[in-house]
Amino acid sequence: MAKIRVGVAGYGVIGQRLADGVALQEDMELVGVADVAPTLAVRALKEKGMPYDLYTALPEKRGELDALKIPVSGTLEDLVKKCDVMLDATSAGVGAKNKELYAKHGKKGIFQGGEKNAVADVFFHGYANYEKGIGAQFLKLTSCNTTGLIRAVDCIDRKAGVERVAITIIRRVADPGDYHRGLTNALQIDHAPSHQALDLMTIMPHVGATGILVHTPVTHGHIITVVMTTKKELSVENALEFFSEHPRIRPVSIDEGFLGNASLFRYARDLGNPRGDMYEIAVWRDSIVKSGKDLMFAINIPQEAVVIPENIDAVRACTGMQKDRIEGTDATNRYLGIGKWKA
Amino acid sequence: MAKIRVGVAGYGVIGQRLADGVALQEDMELVGVADVAPTLAVRALKEKGMPYDLYTALPEKRGELDALKIPVSGTLEDLVKKCDVMLDATSAGVGAKNKELYAKHGKKGIFQGGEKNAVADVFFHGYANYEKGIGAQFLKLTSCNTTGLIRAVDCIDRKAGVERVAITIIRRVADPGDYHRGLTNALQIDHAPSHQALDLMTIMPHVGATGILVHTPVTHGHIITVVMTTKKELSVENALEFFSEHPRIRPVSIDEGFLGNASLFRYARDLGNPRGDMYEIAVWRDSIVKSGKDLMFAINIPQEAVVIPENIDAVRACTGMQKDRIEGTDATNRYLGIGKWKA
Amino acid sequence: MAKIRVGVAGYGVIGQRLADGVALQEDMELVGVADVAPTLAVRALKEKGMPYDLYTALPEKRGELDALKIPVSGTLEDLVKKCDVMLDATSAGVGAKNKELYAKHGKKGIFQGGEKNAVADVFFHGYANYEKGIGAQFLKLTSCNTTGLIRAVDCIDRKAGVERVAITIIRRVADPGDYHRGLTNALQIDHAPSHQALDLMTIMPHVGATGILVHTPVTHGHIITVVMTTKKELSVENALEFFSEHPRIRPVSIDEGFLGNASLFRYARDLGNPRGDMYEIAVWRDSIVKSGKDLMFAINIPQEAVVIPENIDAVRACTGMQKDRIEGTDATNRYLGIGKWKA
Amino acid sequence: MAKIRVGVAGYGVIGQRLADGVALQEDMELVGVADVAPTLAVRALKEKGMPYDLYTALPEKRGELDALKIPVSGTLEDLVKKCDVMLDATSAGVGAKNKELYAKHGKKGIFQGGEKNAVADVFFHGYANYEKGIGAQFLKLTSCNTTGLIRAVDCIDRKAGVERVAITIIRRVADPGDYHRGLTNALQIDHAPSHQALDLMTIMPHVGATGILVHTPVTHGHIITVVMTTKKELSVENALEFFSEHPRIRPVSIDEGFLGNASLFRYARDLGNPRGDMYEIAVWRDSIVKSGKDLMFAINIPQEAVVIPENIDAVRACTGMQKDRIEGTDATNRYLGIGKWKA
Repeated sequence: MAKIRVGVAGYGVIGQRLADGVALQEDMELVGVADVAPTLAVRALKEKGMPYDLYTALPEKRGELDALKIPVSGTLEDLVKKCDVMLDATSAGVGAKNKELYAKHGKKGIFQGGEKNAVADVFFHGYANYEKGIGAQFLKLTSCNTTGLIRAVDCIDRKAGVERVAITIIRRVADPGDYHRGLTNALQIDHAPSHQALDLMTIMPHVGATGILVHTPVTHGHIITVVMTTKKELSVENALEFFSEHPRIRPVSIDEGFLGNASLFRYARDLGNPRGDMYEIAVWRDSIVKSGKDLMFAINIPQEAVVIPENIDAVRACTGMQKDRIEGTDATNRYLGIGKWKA
Repeated sequence: MAKIRVGVAGYGVIGQRLADGVALQEDMELVGVADVAPTLAVRALKEKGMPYDLYTALPEKRGELDALKIPVSGTLEDLVKKCDVMLDATSAGVGAKNKELYAKHGKKGIFQGGEKNAVADVFFHGYANYEKGIGAQFLKLTSCNTTGLIRAVDCIDRKAGVERVAITIIRRVADPGDYHRGLTNALQIDHAPSHQALDLMTIMPHVGATGILVHTPVTHGHIITVVMTTKKELSVENALEFFSEHPRIRPVSIDEGFLGNASLFRYARDLGNPRGDMYEIAVWRDSIVKSGKDLMFAINIPQEAVVIPENIDAVRACTGMQKDRIEGTDATNRYLGIGKWKA
Repeated sequence: MAKIRVGVAGYGVIGQRLADGVALQEDMELVGVADVAPTLAVRALKEKGMPYDLYTALPEKRGELDALKIPVSGTLEDLVKKCDVMLDATSAGVGAKNKELYAKHGKKGIFQGGEKNAVADVFFHGYANYEKGIGAQFLKLTSCNTTGLIRAVDCIDRKAGVERVAITIIRRVADPGDYHRGLTNALQIDHAPSHQALDLMTIMPHVGATGILVHTPVTHGHIITVVMTTKKELSVENALEFFSEHPRIRPVSIDEGFLGNASLFRYARDLGNPRGDMYEIAVWRDSIVKSGKDLMFAINIPQEAVVIPENIDAVRACTGMQKDRIEGTDATNRYLGIGKWKA
Repeated sequence: MAKIRVGVAGYGVIGQRLADGVALQEDMELVGVADVAPTLAVRALKEKGMPYDLYTALPEKRGELDALKIPVSGTLEDLVKKCDVMLDATSAGVGAKNKELYAKHGKKGIFQGGEKNAVADVFFHGYANYEKGIGAQFLKLTSCNTTGLIRAVDCIDRKAGVERVAITIIRRVADPGDYHRGLTNALQIDHAPSHQALDLMTIMPHVGATGILVHTPVTHGHIITVVMTTKKELSVENALEFFSEHPRIRPVSIDEGFLGNASLFRYARDLGNPRGDMYEIAVWRDSIVKSGKDLMFAINIPQEAVVIPENIDAVRACTGMQKDRIEGTDATNRYLGIGKWKA
């Protein structure tokens, strides 16, 4: 069977990781990546010897790339023509514009959480609603917090039924090396309910959700606490067992040395993961408690890489490579090396 | 009526503010403060011209104070003898030792949240269990987070009955100028349930409580989110109304400019409050939401000053100055200027 | 003699402190302050009972103030008419526009470091070039770092002649409560030479200066290291003696407990200074070392308040209240309580 | 020729990177690593499938490793016996104890900057005094700041002669994931002169050095500003040219997107470097300025990896693998991939 040909538009924090992730899929071919300027990511691509072909999304600025002797393989439209599916990780709002190009050439497009929901036919999550993505032309993925949160909620929902969640998002405010935004010695609160709670209800309409988000001046992973009302009451041990079975959830504990979000980043670096990334969310064993009949627990969301697997799931769903949720997500997991450590 | 004579042991972050707070009470006399070394706080006391008499808790180190020409009025024991009540704000563990001195002279002692519960006859909160403190010899106050949290929970409990709370404490890890502890670019999680939830249940045994605490690298106030199950269902408007009536709770909103904990610190400075302190907790109007029949909301705890009013309430209760909860807390509020702004 | 009437345009971080500082000058009258919207500072002014009259700089937005029952005494132009001197602490660029209003009414105007030099007739520093400000209509003050740095350089220059300085500015990136800018887990470097070095040479043209500025994610004071070449070689002791004699320089040491910029903020709060501010720069005794014949040392710049005294010096100079540098700065110091602690 | 057999004692931040670096040297064999407990690094080693053999330095705690099914190949002494050279990256003070073991078996030992100078025969730097290390039994490396700083100073010294440097170290206070130490919203100053200046003079006794160190709450690289007096006056262009020729110095500029220490960390991750590490120091082109006849510039020190190349140089020197400074450092560079990007 011919490999599915995939392109990546926007070679930033997410785009680079999408490209790396697709390149690992043995049943996909990464055709190339597109960007607009000699960013640090593009300079690094060149220093590495151009493992991926680069296309320019802004031909009028191509001179900046030429001046630095960064090879350019064509325009974004050239890239689109060569692909079956475009993973769009451009800045919020640009994806809606690019969609016209994808539509013009009859290609599939997968957008990120920053785009408006209207950009897509389906608001998608690999585990929660894989079936809805099958055959769709335009999909939008959930943002990093929502992607990780839904993994945990869907995991329990399929075992015991989730009625309601109330979440507190302790959000990292910027990525490492991000100088465009920042917060210094301050917590910042957003209007409630947080969009993540609303997004969860769009993907999982049978669950009630609300939440409060507080930005914190750190860069290595969001922590979300979840107060969860289930249909069937669960013990702490039940919950831990269900989490442990999920390929994209990693139970950890304080006593092992996982003291917080920065421990997980350090561990991913020590594992030798590319860029020190981790695809799995973590759940702290030591955080799971009962509140009456409800459960409460804390998870860690590695914001830079967490959405990569679900994006690749989306490629599988929309192209019909796998028509089954478990087959699709398992294929993604296998090529990304997810869950190996559970063996 | 003779003024109640109060001494303060430990002239650190809390001790300084206790001394300032007592000095404002027209029906109390601040006899003096005790400390052990020429800390910055003691140096500042001298630079201000010794508004409070200083006693030494460690006579063998008095030479250090003498060398800097810092006047010393006697030993801690001398201070104890002159007082009716000692407010003990020494480092955790020292209070238990000092208690022997207070007992020897038949004086009352009020300890802070860092001491073990066993140090006291009553674990006290001005609003939640004032009556229990009446006439007691040794009281222990709740820590800053618990003090502020109980204000909010007790406020709703008296109106609608609180069955259960599940809290997420987003904790500031150090005070401004605190070089003894710190966290850099990391969130740190504690074993659940947090001690604040357990302490709440000790003070309010009819309420079920659990919680998760996450340390964050900031210095200007804890933020706690509360998921609260009430006996009588409340609307957002009900809750806001009840909070608004409480003298020690200040409703604020993002749209007014209160973007987070640091806004509240800035506002207190701009108000001209001594040290830029604030006695009130804040509740964000924009954070109050419903989760099914439950309420969810976020409060801000100004960790350096929040316990001062409840400490002064404790003086009133244990000495019997006021035998009624409302009379006692109202007297404290009046002298501290709390609630004026609500008029 | 009639008091000099002073108005303040812009009631933000600097404007509030200018108003407070002017109000302490017994030979000046603070006529009022002007701002455009119900900021936190304006809300605090109202909560304090309007100790200063408020004028609106944007009459079309007056409705926002009225809606909150914040009394408004007139427009900015009304304020200008009543004053002899306007201290302009508006956002960068606004001062240049306001200047037209000041000129129209023949009033003096004093601008802050954010404005372009061309806005003023004289680029002013109370200690370094007081004489140049005498009788001038429009003065511009140096920014916080430059103001503090020049104090230290001028102090040594008058004793031993300064030929050259090479400075490293370790800059706090935001003020407490500032959510408009921020930096998270990053140091950020600016193009060299820093503008502070260039500004120093404009004020002290006989000194050569260069420097590198690095932003750091903290809020409590800049630290500047200075490598200084003097005409007459100085010992560490000489330098310390000269610094100790300067009213606006406070020698401190690590061993006393002044571990860094946050210790100085804490100390100012413990002193009971309004808003926890400090007008003096600090120099660390433990930092002064020799580099060949050069001196090297570190100073701390309390960025929110350091420019206040030199602004008030500027009022004295431009109005001719005092025609002598020492008389002028001494008057400012006396009313602000600067240098008392040295007695 | 037989490969030199190398062991690593202490598998923490530095030890892991030493092991990885040695494993890349085609003329060395990494025999194994030793540690004492199932730290996160050891857990990651296991999760990776034990690419390196693990020895236990504390046999009485071996049970903790066995319980987690982490294979143990023997004791530290077993490892020492199998090696020609031990790279010791244990906690400060432990190396001195381990030295006895190395001496007992007649092996060479290389210690890190945290150990006392007396532990070694030679205080070593690959570029500055390679010759002194040849044939020595015990070497001590400089710490991360000093290693990077000496690269830059030695680079210029060999071209134009360096007489004197005055440095300002803007120090990152902890590594990513380090919860043992931290600083929150504070700069902290050390007693001057900093030990790095003193260490530089020990390695390069013909240079005068002093400096001030300020800790900052960040994790991604120290920035050092250097004011340098050279024998032969240099232009900015000269200096930049010399830096550009050095294999372990990477010139970068703000305009390329290298805004600070965090940009360099991000770039190293984007390069795909293991753990996101970088061996080179960076010098900002935009920071190089003249101060009279002196030079001033800023460098970035990637604290986790910067000492690795000089450690491997030390293996080469002490074993006599290469007896020439350029041959030795070139071999290290070649196997680590340093300087490739300059081609």
